[in-house]
Amino acid sequence: MTDVTPGPRPVDETDLPVVDFHPYRWGDPSHFVTLSERITGALGLVGITTSERPPTPLGELVLPDTGLTAELLDTLREAVGDGSVSTEHDDRTAHANGWSTPDLLRLRGNALVDAPDAVVRPADEAGVESVLRWCGEQRVAVVPFGGGTSVVGGLTAERGGFAGVIALDLAALDRLLDVDAESRILTFEAGTRGPRAEELAAEHGFTIGHFPQSYAGATIGGYAAARSAGQSSAGYGRFDEMVVGLTLVTPRGTIEIGNAPRSAAGPDWRQIILGSEGAFGVITRVRVRVRPLPETRVFEGWRFADFGAGAAALRRLAQDGPRPTVLRLSDEIETLVNLADPNESLEENPGGCLAIVGFEGTAADVAARREAVTTILRDLGGEELGTAPGEAWREGRFNAPYLRDPLLENGVLIETLETATFWSRLTEVRDAVNTALTTALGDQGTPCIPMCHISHVYETGASLYFTVAAAQTEDPVAQWAVAKTAVNETLLRIGAAPSHHHGIGVDHQGVYTEQLGTLAVEALQAIKQTLDPSGVVNPGILLPRAGH
Amino acid sequence: MTDVTPGPRPVDETDLPVVDFHPYRWGDPSHFVTLSERITGALGLVGITTSERPPTPLGELVLPDTGLTAELLDTLREAVGDGSVSTEHDDRTAHANGWSTPDLLRLRGNALVDAPDAVVRPADEAGVESVLRWCGEQRVAVVPFGGGTSVVGGLTAERGGFAGVIALDLAALDRLLDVDAESRILTFEAGTRGPRAEELAAEHGFTIGHFPQSYAGATIGGYAAARSAGQSSAGYGRFDEMVVGLTLVTPRGTIEIGNAPRSAAGPDWRQIILGSEGAFGVITRVRVRVRPLPETRVFEGWRFADFGAGAAALRRLAQDGPRPTVLRLSDEIETLVNLADPNESLEENPGGCLAIVGFEGTAADVAARREAVTTILRDLGGEELGTAPGEAWREGRFNAPYLRDPLLENGVLIETLETATFWSRLTEVRDAVNTALTTALGDQGTPCIPMCHISHVYETGASLYFTVAAAQTEDPVAQWAVAKTAVNETLLRIGAAPSHHHGIGVDHQGVYTEQLGTLAVEALQAIKQTLDPSGVVNPGILLPRAGH
Repeated sequence: MTDVTPGPRPVDETDLPVVDFHPYRWGDPSHFVTLSERITGALGLVGITTSERPPTPLGELVLPDTGLTAELLDTLREAVGDGSVSTEHDDRTAHANGWSTPDLLRLRGNALVDAPDAVVRPADEAGVESVLRWCGEQRVAVVPFGGGTSVVGGLTAERGGFAGVIALDLAALDRLLDVDAESRILTFEAGTRGPRAEELAAEHGFTIGHFPQSYAGATIGGYAAARSAGQSSAGYGRFDEMVVGLTLVTPRGTIEIGNAPRSAAGPDWRQIILGSEGAFGVITRVRVRVRPLPETRVFEGWRFADFGAGAAALRRLAQDGPRPTVLRLSDEIETLVNLADPNESLEENPGGCLAIVGFEGTAADVAARREAVTTILRDLGGEELGTAPGEAWREGRFNAPYLRDPLLENGVLIETLETATFWSRLTEVRDAVNTALTTALGDQGTPCIPMCHISHVYETGASLYFTVAAAQTEDPVAQWAVAKTAVNETLLRIGAAPSHHHGIGVDHQGVYTEQLGTLAVEALQAIKQTLDPSGVVNPGILLPRAGH
Repeated sequence: MTDVTPGPRPVDETDLPVVDFHPYRWGDPSHFVTLSERITGALGLVGITTSERPPTPLGELVLPDTGLTAELLDTLREAVGDGSVSTEHDDRTAHANGWSTPDLLRLRGNALVDAPDAVVRPADEAGVESVLRWCGEQRVAVVPFGGGTSVVGGLTAERGGFAGVIALDLAALDRLLDVDAESRILTFEAGTRGPRAEELAAEHGFTIGHFPQSYAGATIGGYAAARSAGQSSAGYGRFDEMVVGLTLVTPRGTIEIGNAPRSAAGPDWRQIILGSEGAFGVITRVRVRVRPLPETRVFEGWRFADFGAGAAALRRLAQDGPRPTVLRLSDEIETLVNLADPNESLEENPGGCLAIVGFEGTAADVAARREAVTTILRDLGGEELGTAPGEAWREGRFNAPYLRDPLLENGVLIETLETATFWSRLTEVRDAVNTALTTALGDQGTPCIPMCHISHVYETGASLYFTVAAAQTEDPVAQWAVAKTAVNETLLRIGAAPSHHHGIGVDHQGVYTEQLGTLAVEALQAIKQTLDPSGVVNPGILLPRAGH
């Protein structure tokens, strides 16, 4: 246990700066990377050829003219008051899309389908209320915009039947409004980005403990709206488990939820707003359960003979404890490719399946849990790899997505998707998704590498996260659509979750509504109809438009 | 740690038989008790006088004639198929009311306000579907009836505008349908009572771990519909946390929810059905997360100087762990009266505030948690009282409500209510509710004893459970209504939960809808309107009827 070093929380990758983002590149511009020869070589070894696919320069991107009349824009400026309204080309471009690979490909290929007519930045919650009222009255569609990091088409609302579409950027709503240290509850404005929220929490000795891969860009409101789950979910829980209260602004007024830790007062309204993806209104405030800043942390690697053995070990910890703070398992192919550590050569890869096991907390708690977990994992056939692979994963954990941009520029199609299922069905679901991906891409003449890991565990089951790479065809957007459709059809057929933590947006709407059934979808549409009678808030996102 | 005795799960009070219940007495008839002289003496000491209030014999209870025509009853018998339809006096009486004190007083006083016109017992889920369709078509109101243990008026649906009211008794739906041992999920039919469900789970080596005080009577479906929380919630969680999936039968069709442990697929439909109290339809199946049967258990008592010191100790365990399986704290008055152990004389009462700390699990886990908790509680000023008070509480934990019947017969008004709030507001809320109770009852010339305990803890807050006793006035139903109104107004004013685990029914509807606000109530009514367009399912329960 010599790696446990008590003391104040170390500065680490979770202390990322809040930055302006590039419209079609992932994350913080200061982290942009190029493709190493090791990676291009490795791709060649598995039959993925590279080619040059330079993106359209930003200034040359073609956008439709703004569809809002000067009169409407004037009344919108009145409605937003202290905030701002922009119809600038770059503002509209930056708010047109999320961070999915098809989103990026459309921008790179100068093939934007649509863009908001204006970007509105309210100064406060009153501004949001006023803008939503205006949208309802003027029948202008409105897309709530937090970090803009959706990877499921959550920002591409439907324009049909509306006088225009605006993006409602919540960046100015980034304050910590209240600290209840005794109850361990912090109240944030919804536009607060992950790193800023952690910084504010740390000033009071707390951490939220929510570190999704979109951490640098995503906001507190976005975490709630899309049911985000972070890399430390085994210890800190999913974001929806951290939410104590919410404020939802709708075109018809404001709903404030959460006056007790738990209650028996009817359906849980928190769980109606969580996951609503802006379809019911705009989340403006979130009350979040926090934890004390950890004194110490230790991350280590374990190797299991195969995915089944590793999954059984994770299941044991998830069901009987003790729970590590981070608990992940890569399958054989992901372990081999090991994108998490691009400095390691393929030859040195230990094979089998790599698990990452991380602990954060007080020194005594970390030591006790680590000791108990070590005994259990040894008993279950795990081989200790020490802290080097664990620390390498921790240091690189926000970096993997940065590789996507140079890969796309070198003609490689790369994308991720995810689901969740019960333990008894885990292998069946993984195999079915892998088959869907390899068949759909292979049939197009582009064999793929499908990689998978478990990153979130529960007593009854786990998530499955897939990363897939293949050579791009001439039309990579269409190429990926075939694979995505095949996976969605597979999830529908076998009855696994449409998404574990990416959300629904438009990309998962088919499998989502089919699984839910007409009646349950109608009931959700009835909620929307009540809160947003003119249907202006994120039309077509999450729910199909009633009557469309 | 000498009290830890590993071995198979001991037979205990959780192995209660499934029995037929008396219409106006609590629980299992074989457990009925009379009032000891110690208790009448103690009541006298605190100024509560007793008097004889014999109840109306069952056969003499006056009911309105059944309002259903012979033709309707014939088509109902056709609809229910293999099930049965009864219009017998005793059946209708037994389904007229729940187990709240006003419910019992109305029956005892031969002042039943209403009773269902018929009691329908479907043989299976198809029968439920068929009966609900019939109700929708015939505009007959239907009250889903599990154990009939509601203490918030959850069984007294509104009759106005309907052709009649039937009780839909789910007693025949009591099977274990599926066992997924690897994922630790059992699928029960909703009418399975607590003890039977535990028995079925134990056959596969599992426990649900849900032991509310209504355990002997309540059903799996009722636990879900009313968001029940059991005495072991610190270790096993609330029932709503155990629910993996649900089947809801509505007049328009059936909704099946829960294909993953967690997902990001929109609002959580489980959390829409949980707490819906039959207003959206009838829960027919529940998939429940289970745990291995504990090898061992140990319960012990701790004394704290006052409620504040004890609450701080509970908060410490709830926030930083380790969590005991049971964690409770009685305030000074409840500790003094100590209804949990009627054999102990007042003189021997140790004073201060009694906490019960219980552990269940593997021998190693129980020993480790107990040791860590002992250290923490000692540090926080707790005095160890050993296992005697803990075991006394455990043995008597289902007995306290049996005292209510002889108390009512001896002219004592006794009732319970509960709420939840955040840690920073716990003392304020407790004091405000106590003041409301003592003022409302004292002003009627009947000074009361208000007792309070914490029985459910969370990271951000806790529940507060009140038991209050006073001498009955001439009209104890009206007497209690004054007190209940005062408490509801207090909860509304200070913003605490309308209920932590009893639910809303009709008794809490005012404070519930006021807190939620018009817009959120309308949205829930829109769900109901979608699933139950003629509004026949539990009209007026949970939600006010739209337009009424």
